[in-house]
Amino acid sequence: MSISFGQIMESLTVGLEPLEHTVDQLEPGHVDCEVRGIVTAFSASQAVIEQALAKGANLIITHEGVYFSHQDHRDWLEDDPVFEQKNSLIASSGVGIYRFHDYLHRHRPDGVIKGLLRELEWEGYVAEHHSAASILTLPAMEVGEIAAYLKQKLQIPYVRVAGKLSMPCQRVGILVGYRGGGGLAIPLFRKAQLDLVIAGEGPEWETPEYVKDAVHQGRNKALIMLGHAESEAPGMKLLAEELAGQYPDLPVHFIADHPVFQIV
Amino acid sequence: MSISFGQIMESLTVGLEPLEHTVDQLEPGHVDCEVRGIVTAFSASQAVIEQALAKGANLIITHEGVYFSHQDHRDWLEDDPVFEQKNSLIASSGVGIYRFHDYLHRHRPDGVIKGLLRELEWEGYVAEHHSAASILTLPAMEVGEIAAYLKQKLQIPYVRVAGKLSMPCQRVGILVGYRGGGGLAIPLFRKAQLDLVIAGEGPEWETPEYVKDAVHQGRNKALIMLGHAESEAPGMKLLAEELAGQYPDLPVHFIADHPVFQIV
Repeated sequence: MSISFGQIMESLTVGLEPLEHTVDQLEPGHVDCEVRGIVTAFSASQAVIEQALAKGANLIITHEGVYFSHQDHRDWLEDDPVFEQKNSLIASSGVGIYRFHDYLHRHRPDGVIKGLLRELEWEGYVAEHHSAASILTLPAMEVGEIAAYLKQKLQIPYVRVAGKLSMPCQRVGILVGYRGGGGLAIPLFRKAQLDLVIAGEGPEWETPEYVKDAVHQGRNKALIMLGHAESEAPGMKLLAEELAGQYPDLPVHFIADHPVFQIV
Repeated sequence: MSISFGQIMESLTVGLEPLEHTVDQLEPGHVDCEVRGIVTAFSASQAVIEQALAKGANLIITHEGVYFSHQDHRDWLEDDPVFEQKNSLIASSGVGIYRFHDYLHRHRPDGVIKGLLRELEWEGYVAEHHSAASILTLPAMEVGEIAAYLKQKLQIPYVRVAGKLSMPCQRVGILVGYRGGGGLAIPLFRKAQLDLVIAGEGPEWETPEYVKDAVHQGRNKALIMLGHAESEAPGMKLLAEELAGQYPDLPVHFIADHPVFQIV
């Protein structure tokens, strides 16, 4: 049975309130195009696109944009050779790229958080899901133990930690992607009585400086930044499994890209 | 001779075009207050404030805001105990805090970049100063060697690197603070024919993803993120030295705060 790009997109957003403004789009690609195979990934890096083509996939579903910008600003990229080479590859390959960002975050629970909690085997510790965060009550662990657990389960080489590694914690807030900023994370510490926030990334002068002051005041507060991709890739991994279950005749693969940074 | 807060502030902004909108302000504090001693620092963390008081200083000059927010949004902090304790300390101490951000960046060359280049002993390699970046032509070094040099000169425990450590580079762009985002850094790679950008911080899905694609395409591009405070604190250190030279009768100290993050 033939499945189109549009049918996949409809199945991913079914039941969700339509958004007036969204970064989600099929670009390039046409909704009537028949799906031969699907790849999901955090972002459509050139390495991911090449691996998708090698697997015979013609639809890539990513969480972040193709061209290094949340709002797809391409004015930065005028005459840019990296952009032009990537753009040529995409155009000549005929691959479709569906950015599935806003609607995935609007699944309940948030599809990205759901993937992360599944990867961490922490679903059973959820106390409550908020729209942009999930609150967990973990068995008592020290911050350093949690950091080691996160690295092992997510297979990531490092995390950035604000606070004391020896601090015991139980009440944990999880905020994926760029939600580690002060506007979300700082009030959450107080309202949800958190010991620890685990986030993707956020401005360094906001939540990390708050935690520094809190620790200096003798309070039990800590922050672990996983990295943006590291916090959201598990959501795209889970998505591949869900699509594979839903469309058993389609080849569906999740591609884990290399981390953007190494620590020196 | 008595010097007031206002006289110090005037001397720091003399000759600069007044800005219509600026985050720079003396808050708390009164321009007529007599300066007994000055401390400069990246931010007025509680640890910095306590050290300043212990030194007898009554004017703290910082680059970032007191309350974890560039625009001083305090709605995040309603009923927040960390905020309230810090606020009480500041109010009861009578210390003045002058945020010197926008005008310091408008010095020519940018006062923050000037301090960083001085700390790195790289002033002699400057090819050109742009308004938000400086372009250097360094003696040929590999990215890994530059990373090691940065850590040693700035006394910082780690940097985050995108790209290959073995890549040789000479053309380097330096962007401090949050200027590592795609809007500034990506066009700069092309326009200034850079091999390497050294920045404070920026969104992980922008410049780092661009560099990942560029490297995948076989191009010589790399990015080193120093950390926001790590890239800007040397500017505040240089400022303390300049103030000490200008006001020899005033005690002036730079305070190096602890890094917000440790790597685990």
